[in-house]
Amino acid sequence: MQRYRITVSYDGTNYAGWQVQPRDPTVQAGLEGALRQISGETVKVHGSGRTDQGVHARRQVAHVDLSEPIAERALCRGLNALLPSDVRVLGVRRAGIAFHARKSVVEKEYRYFIWNAEVVPPFLCRYRTRIRQPLDVALMQAAAGLLTGKRDFAAFTANPKQHVESTVRRLDGLTVRRKGSEITIVARGEGFLYKMVRSLAGFLIRVGEGALPPRVATEVLASRMRTARVPTAPPHGLFLWDVFY
Amino acid sequence: MQRYRITVSYDGTNYAGWQVQPRDPTVQAGLEGALRQISGETVKVHGSGRTDQGVHARRQVAHVDLSEPIAERALCRGLNALLPSDVRVLGVRRAGIAFHARKSVVEKEYRYFIWNAEVVPPFLCRYRTRIRQPLDVALMQAAAGLLTGKRDFAAFTANPKQHVESTVRRLDGLTVRRKGSEITIVARGEGFLYKMVRSLAGFLIRVGEGALPPRVATEVLASRMRTARVPTAPPHGLFLWDVFY
Repeated sequence: MQRYRITVSYDGTNYAGWQVQPRDPTVQAGLEGALRQISGETVKVHGSGRTDQGVHARRQVAHVDLSEPIAERALCRGLNALLPSDVRVLGVRRAGIAFHARKSVVEKEYRYFIWNAEVVPPFLCRYRTRIRQPLDVALMQAAAGLLTGKRDFAAFTANPKQHVESTVRRLDGLTVRRKGSEITIVARGEGFLYKMVRSLAGFLIRVGEGALPPRVATEVLASRMRTARVPTAPPHGLFLWDVFY
Repeated sequence: MQRYRITVSYDGTNYAGWQVQPRDPTVQAGLEGALRQISGETVKVHGSGRTDQGVHARRQVAHVDLSEPIAERALCRGLNALLPSDVRVLGVRRAGIAFHARKSVVEKEYRYFIWNAEVVPPFLCRYRTRIRQPLDVALMQAAAGLLTGKRDFAAFTANPKQHVESTVRRLDGLTVRRKGSEITIVARGEGFLYKMVRSLAGFLIRVGEGALPPRVATEVLASRMRTARVPTAPPHGLFLWDVFY
C-alpha cells in the first residue's frame, strides 16, 4: 500500500462542492472516478476539508491509498488526462502513512474576492462577488481586527449545532485590502466552522456598507447567536487559497 | 434619431462569435435583443468587426441608432440588467452620425495568450492555449519582427478569396513576451484579415517550438500561399483587446 498526497485546483462553478453527493458532480467524486480508471481499484479520496457548492480552490490537498504503487509523474499526468479542465492536479507526491490530508493540517488560508463596482468584467464573473455600493475598507479592517484570535465563532457559522464538540476556533489573521475595484478578504486559521468564511465576509460587507459599526463585531461574537447581522456571502467569491502542513 | 457608441466586453466561450447566426447564440444577437426590449424597436448593432466562435473581447466597440433618445446611463444599466454576465456593457455614449463602429476604426489591438506549461490553472482554462513544449520566445520575436509593416498577408488568412479587394494590411506591431508560464502575442494594426491573428499565432508557435526557423516568415509572406506551415491557433486564446478611433 502506498499513500499519495495530491494537490488539486478547481473552479467550483459546475460542482456541488468537494464532497461526494448521490446525484450531482463533485470534485471528490471526479478524482475518485479518475483514480479508479487508472488503478483499477475503488478508492476513497480524503480532502483537507470540504468546500461548498460553487466555492473554488486555488490549492486543495487530498490523500489516497493505492495498493499498487504508481510513479508520481504518471499518476499526475493520468489524472489530468482524465479529469475535465476545471479540475487540475497540480502535483502528486508519495506520502508516509502518518500524513493525513485533514488531520495533519496546521493552517488554512481562504480568500474572499469582492468586485466593488457597477460592472464585473466577464472574465471574472465566476470568481468575484459584485457589491455596487462603495465599501469603506478601513471600517471593514477595523471590524476584522476585532474578530481575530482564539474565539467562539458560533455567531459566524450557518449551523452551530453541526459542531457538537466546540465552536471555538483560532483565527490567526483576517485582513481586508483594496486594489482598484477589487477588495480581498484574507482569512487564516487552524480551522474553520461550516460557512464561517462566508459569514465573516457577509458581516464585513455590511460593516463596509456602513450598515453596522465595526464595534458590533465584539457584540456579535459575545452573543454566540446567528442573526441577520451576519448574512452568508455568495459562494462564488470564495477560494480555498492554501493548506499548510 | 440618436446614434450610440457602445463599448462591450465578452467571454466568447458560449457564443458562436460576434455576428448574428440563424440558430446559435451570438453577442450581436444578444445586444440586439436587449436593445429591442429596452427601446421597443428592432435595431441593428454594428460592431467594429466580427470575432469568431470562442474568441473573447476585452473591449469591442459597436454603434446603434435609436429613434427615441435614452439617457446613456439608463441604457447602459438596462443592457447589463438584461444581458447574461458573460457579456458586459462597459459604457454607452451618444455619438454623431459621422461615427461608424467599423468604418471609423483607426487601429485595433489583439492579444493571443499561451500557457506554456504542463497544466493550465482551472481559472484560466477558457482563456489560454496550452502548449506543453517549452517555446523559445526569442525565436518567436525574431519571426514577428519580419512580419510587421505593410505587407500582403494572403498566406496568413484562412480564406484569401474572401478578401476580394486586397490581402494587403498594415501590421504596426507584433510582439511576443513571456512572464512566467504565460506568453503573450500582441498584434496591432489598421485592419486584419479573416483569422489573421490566429494564423500569425499558429505560425509563431511553430517557430517557438523550433519546427521552423524565423527567417521562413519572409518566405511564407512572399509565397502568398496558405500552407501547413501556418496552422490556425485555437480561438480561446484570442482576445480583441482594444479598438482605437
